[in-house]
Amino acid sequence: MAPGSRSSQRVPRAALTASSSSAAPIGREPWPVVPAGVVPVDRAEQHGPASRVGRGHCFQELFQGILERLDAGEIVIGDGGFVIALEKRGYVKAGPWTPEAAVEHPEAVRQLHREFLRAGSDVLQTFTFYASKDKLENRGNYVAEKISGQTVNEAACDIAKEVAKEGDALVGGGVSQTPSYLSGKDEAEVKAIFRQQLDVFAKKNVDFLIAEYFEHVEEAAWAVETLKESGKPVAATLCIGPEGDLHGVPPGECAVQLVKAGASIIGVNCHFDPETCLRTVKLMKEGLEAAKLKAHLMSQPLAFHTPDCGKQGFIDLPEFPFALEPRILTRWDVQKYAREAYNLGIRYIGGCCGFEPYHIRAIAEELATERGFLPPASEKHGSWGNNLSMHTKPWVRARARKEYWENLLPASGRPYCPSMSKPDNWGVTKGAAELMQQKEATTEQQLKELFKKQMFKSNIVA
Amino acid sequence: MAPGSRSSQRVPRAALTASSSSAAPIGREPWPVVPAGVVPVDRAEQHGPASRVGRGHCFQELFQGILERLDAGEIVIGDGGFVIALEKRGYVKAGPWTPEAAVEHPEAVRQLHREFLRAGSDVLQTFTFYASKDKLENRGNYVAEKISGQTVNEAACDIAKEVAKEGDALVGGGVSQTPSYLSGKDEAEVKAIFRQQLDVFAKKNVDFLIAEYFEHVEEAAWAVETLKESGKPVAATLCIGPEGDLHGVPPGECAVQLVKAGASIIGVNCHFDPETCLRTVKLMKEGLEAAKLKAHLMSQPLAFHTPDCGKQGFIDLPEFPFALEPRILTRWDVQKYAREAYNLGIRYIGGCCGFEPYHIRAIAEELATERGFLPPASEKHGSWGNNLSMHTKPWVRARARKEYWENLLPASGRPYCPSMSKPDNWGVTKGAAELMQQKEATTEQQLKELFKKQMFKSNIVA
Amino acid sequence: MAPGSRSSQRVPRAALTASSSSAAPIGREPWPVVPAGVVPVDRAEQHGPASRVGRGHCFQELFQGILERLDAGEIVIGDGGFVIALEKRGYVKAGPWTPEAAVEHPEAVRQLHREFLRAGSDVLQTFTFYASKDKLENRGNYVAEKISGQTVNEAACDIAKEVAKEGDALVGGGVSQTPSYLSGKDEAEVKAIFRQQLDVFAKKNVDFLIAEYFEHVEEAAWAVETLKESGKPVAATLCIGPEGDLHGVPPGECAVQLVKAGASIIGVNCHFDPETCLRTVKLMKEGLEAAKLKAHLMSQPLAFHTPDCGKQGFIDLPEFPFALEPRILTRWDVQKYAREAYNLGIRYIGGCCGFEPYHIRAIAEELATERGFLPPASEKHGSWGNNLSMHTKPWVRARARKEYWENLLPASGRPYCPSMSKPDNWGVTKGAAELMQQKEATTEQQLKELFKKQMFKSNIVA
Amino acid sequence: MAPGSRSSQRVPRAALTASSSSAAPIGREPWPVVPAGVVPVDRAEQHGPASRVGRGHCFQELFQGILERLDAGEIVIGDGGFVIALEKRGYVKAGPWTPEAAVEHPEAVRQLHREFLRAGSDVLQTFTFYASKDKLENRGNYVAEKISGQTVNEAACDIAKEVAKEGDALVGGGVSQTPSYLSGKDEAEVKAIFRQQLDVFAKKNVDFLIAEYFEHVEEAAWAVETLKESGKPVAATLCIGPEGDLHGVPPGECAVQLVKAGASIIGVNCHFDPETCLRTVKLMKEGLEAAKLKAHLMSQPLAFHTPDCGKQGFIDLPEFPFALEPRILTRWDVQKYAREAYNLGIRYIGGCCGFEPYHIRAIAEELATERGFLPPASEKHGSWGNNLSMHTKPWVRARARKEYWENLLPASGRPYCPSMSKPDNWGVTKGAAELMQQKEATTEQQLKELFKKQMFKSNIVA
Repeated sequence: MAPGSRSSQRVPRAALTASSSSAAPIGREPWPVVPAGVVPVDRAEQHGPASRVGRGHCFQELFQGILERLDAGEIVIGDGGFVIALEKRGYVKAGPWTPEAAVEHPEAVRQLHREFLRAGSDVLQTFTFYASKDKLENRGNYVAEKISGQTVNEAACDIAKEVAKEGDALVGGGVSQTPSYLSGKDEAEVKAIFRQQLDVFAKKNVDFLIAEYFEHVEEAAWAVETLKESGKPVAATLCIGPEGDLHGVPPGECAVQLVKAGASIIGVNCHFDPETCLRTVKLMKEGLEAAKLKAHLMSQPLAFHTPDCGKQGFIDLPEFPFALEPRILTRWDVQKYAREAYNLGIRYIGGCCGFEPYHIRAIAEELATERGFLPPASEKHGSWGNNLSMHTKPWVRARARKEYWENLLPASGRPYCPSMSKPDNWGVTKGAAELMQQKEATTEQQLKELFKKQMFKSNIVA
Repeated sequence: MAPGSRSSQRVPRAALTASSSSAAPIGREPWPVVPAGVVPVDRAEQHGPASRVGRGHCFQELFQGILERLDAGEIVIGDGGFVIALEKRGYVKAGPWTPEAAVEHPEAVRQLHREFLRAGSDVLQTFTFYASKDKLENRGNYVAEKISGQTVNEAACDIAKEVAKEGDALVGGGVSQTPSYLSGKDEAEVKAIFRQQLDVFAKKNVDFLIAEYFEHVEEAAWAVETLKESGKPVAATLCIGPEGDLHGVPPGECAVQLVKAGASIIGVNCHFDPETCLRTVKLMKEGLEAAKLKAHLMSQPLAFHTPDCGKQGFIDLPEFPFALEPRILTRWDVQKYAREAYNLGIRYIGGCCGFEPYHIRAIAEELATERGFLPPASEKHGSWGNNLSMHTKPWVRARARKEYWENLLPASGRPYCPSMSKPDNWGVTKGAAELMQQKEATTEQQLKELFKKQMFKSNIVA
Repeated sequence: MAPGSRSSQRVPRAALTASSSSAAPIGREPWPVVPAGVVPVDRAEQHGPASRVGRGHCFQELFQGILERLDAGEIVIGDGGFVIALEKRGYVKAGPWTPEAAVEHPEAVRQLHREFLRAGSDVLQTFTFYASKDKLENRGNYVAEKISGQTVNEAACDIAKEVAKEGDALVGGGVSQTPSYLSGKDEAEVKAIFRQQLDVFAKKNVDFLIAEYFEHVEEAAWAVETLKESGKPVAATLCIGPEGDLHGVPPGECAVQLVKAGASIIGVNCHFDPETCLRTVKLMKEGLEAAKLKAHLMSQPLAFHTPDCGKQGFIDLPEFPFALEPRILTRWDVQKYAREAYNLGIRYIGGCCGFEPYHIRAIAEELATERGFLPPASEKHGSWGNNLSMHTKPWVRARARKEYWENLLPASGRPYCPSMSKPDNWGVTKGAAELMQQKEATTEQQLKELFKKQMFKSNIVA
Repeated sequence: MAPGSRSSQRVPRAALTASSSSAAPIGREPWPVVPAGVVPVDRAEQHGPASRVGRGHCFQELFQGILERLDAGEIVIGDGGFVIALEKRGYVKAGPWTPEAAVEHPEAVRQLHREFLRAGSDVLQTFTFYASKDKLENRGNYVAEKISGQTVNEAACDIAKEVAKEGDALVGGGVSQTPSYLSGKDEAEVKAIFRQQLDVFAKKNVDFLIAEYFEHVEEAAWAVETLKESGKPVAATLCIGPEGDLHGVPPGECAVQLVKAGASIIGVNCHFDPETCLRTVKLMKEGLEAAKLKAHLMSQPLAFHTPDCGKQGFIDLPEFPFALEPRILTRWDVQKYAREAYNLGIRYIGGCCGFEPYHIRAIAEELATERGFLPPASEKHGSWGNNLSMHTKPWVRARARKEYWENLLPASGRPYCPSMSKPDNWGVTKGAAELMQQKEATTEQQLKELFKKQMFKSNIVA
């Protein structure tokens, strides 16, 4: 990178001054929320680098990329789930889950990026999930007729880079699994799909690349190989559990294949809750150790409890995608996850579907000791609920402490509902006719056949 | 109103053309999402009224206020809960719950208003909850030292009015209960607090006024009397359940007092789930009928299931405010609520804490037949999940139908947690020493005494 | 009563000697299990009164009837539920629930009486539930063709009296509601049915009479009036909840009618859990006080948790009668019930369906302080689990204490099941054609119509 | 065996006559309840063999032992759990769980045997669980001071043999694990303990021997070797789950060791629910197949749901032993178990702790087609609830069918309780000092240390 390039403007990664903690209120950790002077983020650019929502660094320093950070032993906090969050905000269509909102409603995408940045994310992923050409025109989702894949990918890069500059974040350009692979297209065809997105990432000069949300390690390896053509660092995550990928390749072996394909960071994302994901990453780690390979570890689990999931993850749960609410993680669940991920040696710690900004903040707060600072959004959040000491009601003030929240077993308020569900478990995977994709909308006749075939029934009222 | 005034620019409230439904996809109701051509809301102002995110009206018409709409039998959809939503986004501090973000992070407040507007809200409430002077400097929440109450209230009005213009929404200026009342201040002192906010609402010319979130009908009546000084319509909601206000005044009697104080719209908000709120509004309705009084009915419940609440509502639940996740309503729960509210004769139907934009959209979708149109955000949401017909997996496509979602009993994925909690139930109310408020932060000693007194234990791990 | 009559042989009701507690083991209360020398009950008769399983009385004393005991302020412990217990043991048919086992398998009935006696029951009810002529030949239950009602009632009296002599128990002759009433027969006809059973009770000289399990106070009052013809004390219980009888008569008014009909002891039995029953008895008590009437109070609730029941009680629960297991009370639940019943002023404290001998023992153990002694079966049960100190495993020994069991919230091990059910709630009561009874078996056609009508569905897997 | 010996009097094992099913009521299977004429079991002996509660055999036949039956492919139904059932009836002390009731209260033990016989048990196990000398005087359970081990074992044999004659049942003499093994005694010492019980079984000439409830396969193998000295067939069950014995020996290897020690029938009993036990037996079966060994398979699981158990089974659950109620299996759960056990190739199918007579009847009813007859107690039980067609209430009659009960998900009525528990999991096993046994009662000091050490807390109210 040339001197004076954008990256050199990044705020430095210096040690924190201890003095900042002198007047910490009750329960507040002795780490600064940075920057101390609250600056509305939408005015940040007028102020230049010094006022950026960043990490409290006090002097200029060379910008560091994802691998430099991880190699130095730093914790890198990822961001949360865009499609689920933006669906709830009204900008993404559940079903196709495609990211055309980057073009249609850039302000909404920008705002979500900002919130994750404030919450502590060190990486902003471009909102390019399922932005491959074949997905934008799958099963009646006629996005591609109005907006080209290139337009979507470019808009997403622009937004992410714009917001990243407001802080000290890296931009990761992301690709994910394709309908083409599922429909049996060959390696060359599938790689060509990835390459279309990669061309945009290269042009927009993102900081690194992420191949995420792959159910089959074979396709993920193809993605990694394609992304490596750029020369940038590549991270790769599968959406698998301890049983391995949908073709039955165990996690340890998956990890080996991804590293051999060129990934520097490997792990899992989506499909399972933190506990299940960490068990899976542990198996990956052991696989790498057995193969004497090295890579950084990464986890971006769901913010939903899924102890009852089968191999296919939360997609199989009867509650997916419109009744997952009772499963949403609390911030305290996330703190537990962050600690356990850290203890397992994972240093790229983020979330996926269901992770809202406050979940990401919980990662940053749990690991504030290790990181030495709190994220900007902690200006509005006392650790372990200590701001409740300002509540009007005395019994709520009595909850302003760690032991309370750490030990609470929250009720659902749903006594007519069960605790666990039987997953759908159709057991079809790549190769099954039912998984062949089509550009046209699913017909009424096709739907009727599916309705008839629906096997899950355990918590449907007859 | 003068010709050319802002209100005359509002889009008209015309009948819908039937032709718009000719090519409805499977499961899609025959009502237009309006406007048909999707226009990014942040560019709306450049386009003028015709492109506003509105209700699909086809010609100019005089602007109608809240009472004209309700008197005409229209359904008015309220908005959702700001403090809880913005807390999760990183802009509001739980505990004090004050709205200084309107000054500090206007872009975040603006975006949430937009999302509610897109979701179908006919009213945007100014983000002035707890923006009374005495609350901005209560118990160590030293907001007022940095930002005056007037500044907060003005900023909130400006944002709400700006976004309202992007559609066809009314702006309601809101006041809520005060620490002064709880600390035993007299009527004149408490009314003076309300009047400070009212001065701003008058200056900013909001469309109508809302007195909301009152636990004591006496204070609510004082608020209504104060707000009526403006000459604008006043709506008033208590945060009470079927047992009545915290002094034991039953709902029917509360309703009578509010109407006699001058409220044109009365009902409940916050503290309880839809089912409990509707039971309360029913009692209010019966009280008015018995007293031969008339008023429009309004409900803005929590988006949390609270079958286990006592008189004090969800504040008493051990999960409040940081572990309420398993109680969050699904969109289907909200559709059921909207239908039942409508059947009960309620025409101002909205939400409070926990209501996210997709919950408001669910109200608008459930009542689309009665209203004749769908909200803008339904461009991204097939009714009853019909967009799932575009999902990659066949068993998820099989969920693209009403019977599936209507009958699902969602699991929590939390088998170690109970279904219901024992509320804290300290039983203190106005008059109790423990409820005297103070400007200074709660001291460590005060906290320790509260910790010792904490009675709730039923689902805390020892 | 004549000198030398059976009752004069009863063991006396003397004060307890304090010395018996000198060597109490850890956690054991200082009350004697009586008699100290364990005597197998089946050899008791050879030993004469001194060795009977009784209350540790040391010298002869006049026998005391039910009213003398209650008038003296004594606690009288009832027995548990015969039809449910004997159904599980293989001797009673669920559906008709008739007691012909008294003739067919006397040893099984005798053994259950003995177990309740050992557990602390002061009253043994004759196993004559539903032993009215019209019930023995209802809906295809052709018992009466083989065994006459008189034979059943006589056998039941003989067994109860035989076992009562093994201890110091009273025999209560019981009648319950009739198909005749439900089918619209008049007062004279219904009373004639009761009188058939009463003739046997008089001939067998039971100690007092019980009219129990009535859903309609009108029929219960007829029963009381009939039983009073004998001159013996009469107790009367309805199987109702706080909403009152099935015709809507509130509990307080029901109590008044029963006392006016001649009952000396009134209360509730069956259909609801302890908590609900106690709320109902409280209403009855208040009704009597308002009417300035006096009666002893009695409660014999279910040993099943039924927070979700409607007016019709557990009959309406989808789990009735073959899937009630997860609702069974623990012994600790029963101890809580016994204490609360006592605190409410109830002195005749027993159980109904679901109460097994160990549940009755729990009543006796909870009230051992007030009664001054423990029941014989406590020789095998350390209070609050203290015998666990003899367990092999150290962590089970750690459970040998009150605080452990008192505070445990037991799990169901059924994560796919809900906590509560929607009751069936057909809402039919006396007068509805569907409740007309018939001697003949329900036909297949009749069943098919019922299957179609079945409304409950909430926790049936489709 | 000599002609005219007891066994020759056994009723024959003939094919059933089809005619008996001609007048089957609705829903009743076409298998006879045998004997058709109901004969009170306590009068059975006066009638001689022909009237015994048996299997409907119509002519004399040679008695068949356990192996002849299994070798012929017959299903052998075991009995249920004595210590838990008799604890609830008031005759066994939880903690020590020793069977001195066989001497103290023979009528109670006899009655339970009879109930299991009526329910369909083909085997009556002598009530000699934990009747080893060292267990009768362990940790303050001073039974041996009053009643010798020999007396207990002899009484238990006498009762079992007496009841077995009332039907066509075999008597199995049972031994179980010893405190001596746990305390580190050597093979000779432990075998000497077993031999004391075996001497009684030999003298009383039981039909075969059972070594059951062993946590360590090493001790179980010692038991089998000892029992084989008698020349009678030996069955052996471990109380282990899929993780293997407490020393970590996997189930497959355990099975091999037991067969090599001389067992003809092997499997698991106690500690886990049916589902877990069947998974374990499957592993045992696979172990035998891999080792090319043959044995009959046997399962006697708990009648408690234990999905949350660890390696130590239900002993570790916080609910053990006094709050297991919500986990009790319904009869329908047992029918499912019986079918799955049968499908897995298990032919000795019974139950352990929690199995009441009606649970055993459920096995017999589920397998009535395969066995050709119903057990005597089915005279009081219509299969799949069909006797409910005789119920008074129409909505209960609507439950008289298989689909209803098969698909019901029963609620607990305990909304404040969780679905699953965290087991205690102290992780101590043979060799740990805490497992050393002592004759003396646990001292208060020892208890206090244990109370302090108690780790389980997850569903204890603080």
